[in-house]
Amino acid sequence: MTDPLPDHEPLRVAVLGAGTVGADVLRLIRLNGEELAHRIGAPLRVIGIAVQDVSKDRGEHVDHALLTTDASALVREADLVVEVMGGIEPARGLLLEAIENGASVVTANKALLAQDGVTLYEAADEHGVDLHFEAAVAGAIPLVRPIRESLAGDRIQRVLGIVNGTTNYILDAMARTGAAFEDALARAQELGFAEADPTADVEGHDAAAKASILASLAFHTRVGLQDVHCEGITSVTSADIAAAARMGRTIKLLAIVERIADAEGTERISARVYPAMIPSSHPLASVGEAYNAVFIEAEAAGSLMFYGQGAGGAPTASAILGDLVTVARQRVLGGVGPRESRYADLEIVGIGSLRNGFYLSLTVQDRPGVLAEVAGTLSAHGISISTIHQEPLPQAEGTEDRARIGIATYAAAESSVDSALDVLDSSGAVIAIDSVLRIEGE
Amino acid sequence: MTDPLPDHEPLRVAVLGAGTVGADVLRLIRLNGEELAHRIGAPLRVIGIAVQDVSKDRGEHVDHALLTTDASALVREADLVVEVMGGIEPARGLLLEAIENGASVVTANKALLAQDGVTLYEAADEHGVDLHFEAAVAGAIPLVRPIRESLAGDRIQRVLGIVNGTTNYILDAMARTGAAFEDALARAQELGFAEADPTADVEGHDAAAKASILASLAFHTRVGLQDVHCEGITSVTSADIAAAARMGRTIKLLAIVERIADAEGTERISARVYPAMIPSSHPLASVGEAYNAVFIEAEAAGSLMFYGQGAGGAPTASAILGDLVTVARQRVLGGVGPRESRYADLEIVGIGSLRNGFYLSLTVQDRPGVLAEVAGTLSAHGISISTIHQEPLPQAEGTEDRARIGIATYAAAESSVDSALDVLDSSGAVIAIDSVLRIEGE
Repeated sequence: MTDPLPDHEPLRVAVLGAGTVGADVLRLIRLNGEELAHRIGAPLRVIGIAVQDVSKDRGEHVDHALLTTDASALVREADLVVEVMGGIEPARGLLLEAIENGASVVTANKALLAQDGVTLYEAADEHGVDLHFEAAVAGAIPLVRPIRESLAGDRIQRVLGIVNGTTNYILDAMARTGAAFEDALARAQELGFAEADPTADVEGHDAAAKASILASLAFHTRVGLQDVHCEGITSVTSADIAAAARMGRTIKLLAIVERIADAEGTERISARVYPAMIPSSHPLASVGEAYNAVFIEAEAAGSLMFYGQGAGGAPTASAILGDLVTVARQRVLGGVGPRESRYADLEIVGIGSLRNGFYLSLTVQDRPGVLAEVAGTLSAHGISISTIHQEPLPQAEGTEDRARIGIATYAAAESSVDSALDVLDSSGAVIAIDSVLRIEGE
Repeated sequence: MTDPLPDHEPLRVAVLGAGTVGADVLRLIRLNGEELAHRIGAPLRVIGIAVQDVSKDRGEHVDHALLTTDASALVREADLVVEVMGGIEPARGLLLEAIENGASVVTANKALLAQDGVTLYEAADEHGVDLHFEAAVAGAIPLVRPIRESLAGDRIQRVLGIVNGTTNYILDAMARTGAAFEDALARAQELGFAEADPTADVEGHDAAAKASILASLAFHTRVGLQDVHCEGITSVTSADIAAAARMGRTIKLLAIVERIADAEGTERISARVYPAMIPSSHPLASVGEAYNAVFIEAEAAGSLMFYGQGAGGAPTASAILGDLVTVARQRVLGGVGPRESRYADLEIVGIGSLRNGFYLSLTVQDRPGVLAEVAGTLSAHGISISTIHQEPLPQAEGTEDRARIGIATYAAAESSVDSALDVLDSSGAVIAIDSVLRIEGE
């Protein structure tokens, strides 16, 4: 037996987009309608679903009678707007129109938030409505709310995480099967873990967008996409993964945002995305397949970890519904909920002035003195070697003897490593610089 | 460069209690005052700290001028009340007084919430104020907010977690060192991981209180302390832990709350706390020392895990500050924030009607036919054995030959296991039933 349904008038919900996530959002609203009404204190009524093509079949959960191509008219009728269409425009314009018309909005649009979130935040403040986007970072994993609210009384020092499921799936497959990047990618595409055009994932753009959102939330400052140093995984080879394993390390695509205080105590922010070697004993190393996991280090709370599904229709829809219930309940209760604050204006630290351990893989001439020359060049740039591994390479027809040298360094300035690599690159002894990977989490 | 401080009038904060957690709350408010003011949109002003003994020295962060023994007068002056005194009364009365006077309250008092949370929730609803208690469950780990808000649009099926740091520290130490329970407890007390009177922790009462709070939140129903089946770890022996290791399992004190649907689809709730064997490959098995970790299984979100420090002054204070910022911000913005809903009235499933795998350790007469008798008794009760291990016990002066039998069963009805144990207990061949532990997470 449950309590009777609340008699509050229904809240009018507009859904923009009816792809995989949109269909799951509509499925959950229909499936759990009664429970949601109890949790909200009012029923939700979907008044329209904006799509580009109303004729396309979208499965049983998408009511055709509600499809419309006039998104603008739809948002003006709504109390609550759910945006799952993606892309910058028309999403941006429609969300601003909704906000200006007094609707609270829920979006999963990480690209839009990363590029122009501030405009949306400020519009929401100005018009006294709620703007939620839990689904934009790490899908189903509650991360935005914990950072924005649970840790609002603490000081976050660092967020380090695996926030892109596609690349984690690929790197995990490469590590498990020894497959090359291209083959692992193809398999991921077959299984639906990677899109036909995987650029945004494999080049790190998706993770970079999430990093900029995480940095803005965690440090209460403005970090745009252009502030995030971004490197993808397309150049990670099975040789790199084998070398990592040999050193007891695992390669993961990491999003890292942190506070860095200089000698005078002035704080700046670093935000970066790149494939890095982490110890295989690190909790993030065991995050397999398309899962996401995020570590947060805060002054008082210490280390926190959040783990779960970072993508997929249902998990993403779960995060969106959570936001929808929150903003809907806020409507019923009156007022607006807490939002992120961006009072600080912290400088961004360029990647060049950071210090990191590095893994370098070089193809060199296999002759006396080469190893000494390489080591000499590194030490001349103040870079000290922690481990080194040399092996001869199979000789190709009519080529000189060649060897591969794998070097792990202790923490060194990025700028020193760059100049050392320039010198090595121009050295006759070095045939190729195969890989440059950072070492994190030690 | 930072934006100027907001010019909103200060919010008057009353702190009830100035123990470890209270002192850390006051330290963080002082330390991060300016940042908090920005996040809130108004400065926080601590107007008083209620204690029993104003003469006691409480360290540099507790301003003596603010100490008072008149808690009741203090709460009537406050906009926001932080309760960290613990215990049922006077905490309960003071929180109700605060709520009736229109103050929003933040509490870490799990015992009070488990025993009489409903009274507090309803008072907060009635008087339109916020009641937050993130710190009451799993300390610094954001759990209440994710369950209450992030997953509000989903359906949680099961929550399974390590929510008591003291018992996890003890079990972890026993597993690492082979120490007996008493020695591991004594060591934990030396190191401050266990209290002088460890009853509430080692008997599972603390975990049971958290389980009732988790169940109420996760299933939007009322689950009181009396509804939680509770067993502690005092009877867990180093022999049990060795036996678990032999079977590739680890013993953890688990809090488990779940929805159970019967054949007709009617849903009921199970809430229980007991030491259980889980596979050593289970993520919870690797949660060491005093850390907490909680798994949540939800229909759409899938599996989520939250990990962090479940106790300690600073981590608990971090959770309290997060709540304090949220309720303070809500004050500035107007209205009240979302709160848990308790519209459902779900029956509690008695432990007897559950099914579980079991580990049974028996001391028996070491003579032919005993093993057959034991196995026969179990199968007569519909309990099938997955693994069995028998070893002779060292013979004590003038006693009969004795052996120990360790048995892991497949899932069986709790009631069948109980009656089988009664039969075994009264059998001449069985000298003692040493241990009965459940097997979970398989």
